[in-house]
Amino acid sequence: MENKCNITEFVGVNPIGDTIGLVIANVDQQVLDAMKLEKSYRSIGVVGARTGAGPHIMAADEAVKATNTEIVKIELPRDTKGGAGHGSLIIFGGEDVSDVRRAVEVTLKEVDRTFGDVYANDAGHIELQYTARASYACQTAFGAEYGRAFGLIVGAPAAIGVVMADTAVKAANVTVVGYASPGNGGTSHSNEAILFISGDSGAVRQSVISAREVGLALLGSMGDEPTNSQPSYI
Amino acid sequence: MENKCNITEFVGVNPIGDTIGLVIANVDQQVLDAMKLEKSYRSIGVVGARTGAGPHIMAADEAVKATNTEIVKIELPRDTKGGAGHGSLIIFGGEDVSDVRRAVEVTLKEVDRTFGDVYANDAGHIELQYTARASYACQTAFGAEYGRAFGLIVGAPAAIGVVMADTAVKAANVTVVGYASPGNGGTSHSNEAILFISGDSGAVRQSVISAREVGLALLGSMGDEPTNSQPSYI
Amino acid sequence: MENKCNITEFVGVNPIGDTIGLVIANVDQQVLDAMKLEKSYRSIGVVGARTGAGPHIMAADEAVKATNTEIVKIELPRDTKGGAGHGSLIIFGGEDVSDVRRAVEVTLKEVDRTFGDVYANDAGHIELQYTARASYACQTAFGAEYGRAFGLIVGAPAAIGVVMADTAVKAANVTVVGYASPGNGGTSHSNEAILFISGDSGAVRQSVISAREVGLALLGSMGDEPTNSQPSYI
Repeated sequence: MENKCNITEFVGVNPIGDTIGLVIANVDQQVLDAMKLEKSYRSIGVVGARTGAGPHIMAADEAVKATNTEIVKIELPRDTKGGAGHGSLIIFGGEDVSDVRRAVEVTLKEVDRTFGDVYANDAGHIELQYTARASYACQTAFGAEYGRAFGLIVGAPAAIGVVMADTAVKAANVTVVGYASPGNGGTSHSNEAILFISGDSGAVRQSVISAREVGLALLGSMGDEPTNSQPSYI
Repeated sequence: MENKCNITEFVGVNPIGDTIGLVIANVDQQVLDAMKLEKSYRSIGVVGARTGAGPHIMAADEAVKATNTEIVKIELPRDTKGGAGHGSLIIFGGEDVSDVRRAVEVTLKEVDRTFGDVYANDAGHIELQYTARASYACQTAFGAEYGRAFGLIVGAPAAIGVVMADTAVKAANVTVVGYASPGNGGTSHSNEAILFISGDSGAVRQSVISAREVGLALLGSMGDEPTNSQPSYI
Repeated sequence: MENKCNITEFVGVNPIGDTIGLVIANVDQQVLDAMKLEKSYRSIGVVGARTGAGPHIMAADEAVKATNTEIVKIELPRDTKGGAGHGSLIIFGGEDVSDVRRAVEVTLKEVDRTFGDVYANDAGHIELQYTARASYACQTAFGAEYGRAFGLIVGAPAAIGVVMADTAVKAANVTVVGYASPGNGGTSHSNEAILFISGDSGAVRQSVISAREVGLALLGSMGDEPTNSQPSYI
């Protein structure tokens, strides 16, 4: 994380996913109105990335747990620099600008971990996320149940995600919270099929691990062995 | 088409368009519900690709003709690996898993042919498709009339597709079945204008050939001579 | 601008943004109906690009000022050849084909200028546009007030655009006309936050310049120094 920018709003960057963290202590009211945030905070934290969504939302989930802030908006650009997935735009709100800044800092740092189970090759990518206790970012973005174990299973091209989803649900006693696909909602037309699951933490974890195994084999059949840029955390 | 993957659901891949074919013999009910398919089959075939849509849907059209299966969903990711067009997610359903598997196999093979009139250079691409007798995949995805000759005319950037569309309709006595563009529906915001035509087989074919001629010249004016990776079939 | 294509409809190309300009003297009625243009002109001009939107719309704005034509449609593909932004599809209409052709020619030429304040590096881009007097293209695409000074402020990844927007509005006495972001409307899920402002010409210009300064610093913190391919005009 570098800090080589002298703009007041700059918090830091993380080159993983081309991620930038920013904070505005006192947002102009006209801009605040135009942004149509669900809750109006004068101090907002802004995390943006070219490649991400899953990793950044999971990182933001840790940030809201660790600070006195709220998630006021999560948007998913169709991006990944020409890849098959999304980028991120996450907006935190808080009464105290130092809380908001802290939330952005935590997010930038957590991204190192949450990219651990993103595996890619030239043909596509798979992504797995797991938390023993979902917080407000997972709830806002994915419909996760607050405080319960939550898992995210992504395959791209989307066909791989469909088989990963089926594998995940057969592998353990979990509940499907949602499903997203290119034309069915939940994505911004990315080439991903995504399953959201909840349940007991052991079951969710087992389910995610089973999906990862199948996803790696299928994606690997299309090209080189898929690799992750950060160490796996699941 | 390689077969180097030991996952049960794996059928095969076709490196053209980064295409993968999969089959799930007995889809988990929770996943099936979450996918919101129009018809619920327990056996589904899944074809996914990074680059395609037109080629894959035309290939799937042959597959439903050749097998006792149905198209239960077609979705168009905004993809092409950073290019101007779509990828594909096509789901077949059938009572018998061997039928579904066969449909996936036919699709993977037909893609060799249906990429024949996709021409690209660094500035964009054009695509032409033609069938003397449209089946259910063309009907589902493009609104084609079942059993009638059908043509597909694509230009990217979309401006080229507009002129190709006009040329096509002036070239022969065909009926416009539909039109898709970046912001007007029918695309997932891809940079393509697409015309769907039906009519007598000779007229549709002539219309498609005329559009191809104009499209190649216009796309060629923006860069290198556009080339196809497979032999032309129209 | 080259003119190496012998198709009647060809007007010219501009390699900046992969831009092509076309004109159809007498559009086929079936195609015209399918395109669902708000106004039906038999002569249409078509400008398309892989990378653009802002630059092309500003250029088209000059074109409608300079000719007896109207803007009949503006669509924003999600494109930029795998970058974070949009391409363009702009359709002019006019009673006289020579007017329409002239509008396309003006647009192709003006793009040289309107790309002047697009700055990019590998992590993203920022874009600034300014006109002392907005015309119908800015009105159609951005909701600008006709005849009044208008400014456009874009940052990608979108987080940068949020801070640029806040900076712009604090820098001078301007009115927010609109705001676009990846999931909030106004974009085609591009990774951009965009602010549209109007006001007195001096205020709008000052506002845009302030946003540019902040945007360049923030984008620069993510990678190399952002550069423009054409000379700045603001």
